[in-house]
Amino acid sequence: MQPLEKINSKKNKARYEIVLHTLLNKFEIINTELSMEENRIFIHNTSGRIKNMDSIQTKLVKKGCEPGYEMAMERINDIVGVRAVCYYMDDLYRVADTLSRHTDMEILRIKNYMEHPKKSGYRSLHMIVKVMITFSGKQEWVKAEIQLRTFAMDYWAVLDHQLRYKKGSLDINAKDGMEIEKELLDYAGALETIDKKMMKIRDKIEKI
Amino acid sequence: MQPLEKINSKKNKARYEIVLHTLLNKFEIINTELSMEENRIFIHNTSGRIKNMDSIQTKLVKKGCEPGYEMAMERINDIVGVRAVCYYMDDLYRVADTLSRHTDMEILRIKNYMEHPKKSGYRSLHMIVKVMITFSGKQEWVKAEIQLRTFAMDYWAVLDHQLRYKKGSLDINAKDGMEIEKELLDYAGALETIDKKMMKIRDKIEKI
Amino acid sequence: MQPLEKINSKKNKARYEIVLHTLLNKFEIINTELSMEENRIFIHNTSGRIKNMDSIQTKLVKKGCEPGYEMAMERINDIVGVRAVCYYMDDLYRVADTLSRHTDMEILRIKNYMEHPKKSGYRSLHMIVKVMITFSGKQEWVKAEIQLRTFAMDYWAVLDHQLRYKKGSLDINAKDGMEIEKELLDYAGALETIDKKMMKIRDKIEKI
Amino acid sequence: MQPLEKINSKKNKARYEIVLHTLLNKFEIINTELSMEENRIFIHNTSGRIKNMDSIQTKLVKKGCEPGYEMAMERINDIVGVRAVCYYMDDLYRVADTLSRHTDMEILRIKNYMEHPKKSGYRSLHMIVKVMITFSGKQEWVKAEIQLRTFAMDYWAVLDHQLRYKKGSLDINAKDGMEIEKELLDYAGALETIDKKMMKIRDKIEKI
Repeated sequence: MQPLEKINSKKNKARYEIVLHTLLNKFEIINTELSMEENRIFIHNTSGRIKNMDSIQTKLVKKGCEPGYEMAMERINDIVGVRAVCYYMDDLYRVADTLSRHTDMEILRIKNYMEHPKKSGYRSLHMIVKVMITFSGKQEWVKAEIQLRTFAMDYWAVLDHQLRYKKGSLDINAKDGMEIEKELLDYAGALETIDKKMMKIRDKIEKI
Repeated sequence: MQPLEKINSKKNKARYEIVLHTLLNKFEIINTELSMEENRIFIHNTSGRIKNMDSIQTKLVKKGCEPGYEMAMERINDIVGVRAVCYYMDDLYRVADTLSRHTDMEILRIKNYMEHPKKSGYRSLHMIVKVMITFSGKQEWVKAEIQLRTFAMDYWAVLDHQLRYKKGSLDINAKDGMEIEKELLDYAGALETIDKKMMKIRDKIEKI
Repeated sequence: MQPLEKINSKKNKARYEIVLHTLLNKFEIINTELSMEENRIFIHNTSGRIKNMDSIQTKLVKKGCEPGYEMAMERINDIVGVRAVCYYMDDLYRVADTLSRHTDMEILRIKNYMEHPKKSGYRSLHMIVKVMITFSGKQEWVKAEIQLRTFAMDYWAVLDHQLRYKKGSLDINAKDGMEIEKELLDYAGALETIDKKMMKIRDKIEKI
Repeated sequence: MQPLEKINSKKNKARYEIVLHTLLNKFEIINTELSMEENRIFIHNTSGRIKNMDSIQTKLVKKGCEPGYEMAMERINDIVGVRAVCYYMDDLYRVADTLSRHTDMEILRIKNYMEHPKKSGYRSLHMIVKVMITFSGKQEWVKAEIQLRTFAMDYWAVLDHQLRYKKGSLDINAKDGMEIEKELLDYAGALETIDKKMMKIRDKIEKI
């Protein structure tokens, strides 16, 4: 078993940076294509990150795995993660569909937290993909995670993140914590309603 | 009377670009200062633009003024406009207050569309300011407009803008248009409710 | 024969923007890979542009072609052009070689203005390539030009450009113009000498 | 005596970042102003950095000072350092002169390494300045260093830096090292000659 530290080798760092750039470039390209087709901007903003070793270790332990390099390669799909924020809910499917036509990418799995939100209220469209890069003169496929959100989903998630993690000490099993969780869940619902109505208004306008 | 075209002189273009940079830099600085004090990011994103001559002309005509250069200088306050998007409603007052301490800036007027939303539902904190720049070796004061919004206000405004202007032909006096306007107004209210509850949750967490 | 204006169709604009992003992303990726291998930065800066219709027309006329759309497609290779600036002369070959391993790109032709400088003194490594993009759900290959330069070549070219085009009126057939051309040619030689010695010093240091 | 670590306090970090932004913004502004006046770009690129504590400590020890916080405040002028690269030698004086008109900045000292190059061949125009910032609601003046270079000076300096520091082990007192130093010094001279001739060509063209 190789130690988890291998994740931080010069070669792996370069590899993951290349995957990150490649995926962010795909968002750029898809935005250009879809914005041209629909006469409006599709992707509001994008971001990406490479998971650090500590987070990988924590995640492996949580999954009940031995925290070694091979396990990380096998079980952690989001060492590279990118995110795009769109305007309307159906835009997310459109972006996902456009991505699926790229021959240097393969969608391995879709986690549809729009149709099936997480218990917390979290909504988003996640995809585990593998993407082909040319590295050290050879082609290779690397796994990554793509998250697609609407403006409203991102709004909720950013605040949820800020609120939950602001005080690392926040014990969300305690009574107060549960109350806050409950409130956030309610807002997630309110924002979903807004997301849906926005699509309806858009459709109405297009029909006038 | 000098012609409105003077707005586009090489010198004016440079002047307004300098004002734009100066104000965006102030957002950057204030974000650094307040993020340090509060241990969280204050300003999510910023943007800015210089109003083009056609828009200035249209605005002058709408105000019932002669569309000449002097009138533009006197009556149009937002030739340079910048915007910052924050997380919480009270952040906007904090940013405004921090700006007011800058000796190279003076706040001329505050339009508080948070307390008094526009008829459409539009909420925001607008400030007409004058800012000092060093240009061609001399100090001069130039007017500009600063808009401060929360994430939720911006969400609404972006969609409102997309929806209203998507079809320039949209006749908002027509029955369909009015219906849509009504819906947007309702959502503005819904988002304001969310804005207020978010502050409450934040305060609760900080007290735990 | 289709009119040249077709170059500016919404679809072509999006297509060329996608090619531009794709090539700039390749520079980013290659820089990551080679910087990792050599423990120093490889690419100092990059830039790119889409040729406007007027320049395409001028170029077609200069080549003695009818200025229509099909001719532009056939004869103009640099509608999309990208440039990377490296530190050492042999870096250019290294970048070119790394690019040649990418399966979504094919190098059609190399114009080696390092070994065979232009009459003006211009040195650079140009490549005409075709690059594969996924556009409107299909794969297609689009031609583009890649220019690789050292810092010193870029220094010369930037000044050459500034000097030659500063006054569009500059008649370089006139006696004064020829004198200036002659001087620039001499400096090109001086900078080539510096480029070569820099590589020698680098090699010396690596051997100490 | 306060410990040097105080340099890294949250407050100092924010303060130095604000100074950095403020100075980079000045370059942006000055570039806009001078480019407008001369119809050509003045500043090719800019960069900046905040000196880390280790480098400050090393510098204090080298100066024979006790490595404490007060000494750093008194003796280290370049905790914040910014750099701008211009095209022509006389541009540097023009940028310096324009900066000197800014009322929120004061030039404390000029080190003219153009007229008096360092022993190594290094040429540049350095200025120790103090700049006024609004921080925590109050005005304060902070010291910083501004470096102005031509393209050619930067070319030399970048390669000099790469070559000298590539191998930290390079013993420049050794025979090989001295030889390399000598070569770099010669190239500095060659590049200075080119810098001067470039200005002459520019002047010739402007007179045609």
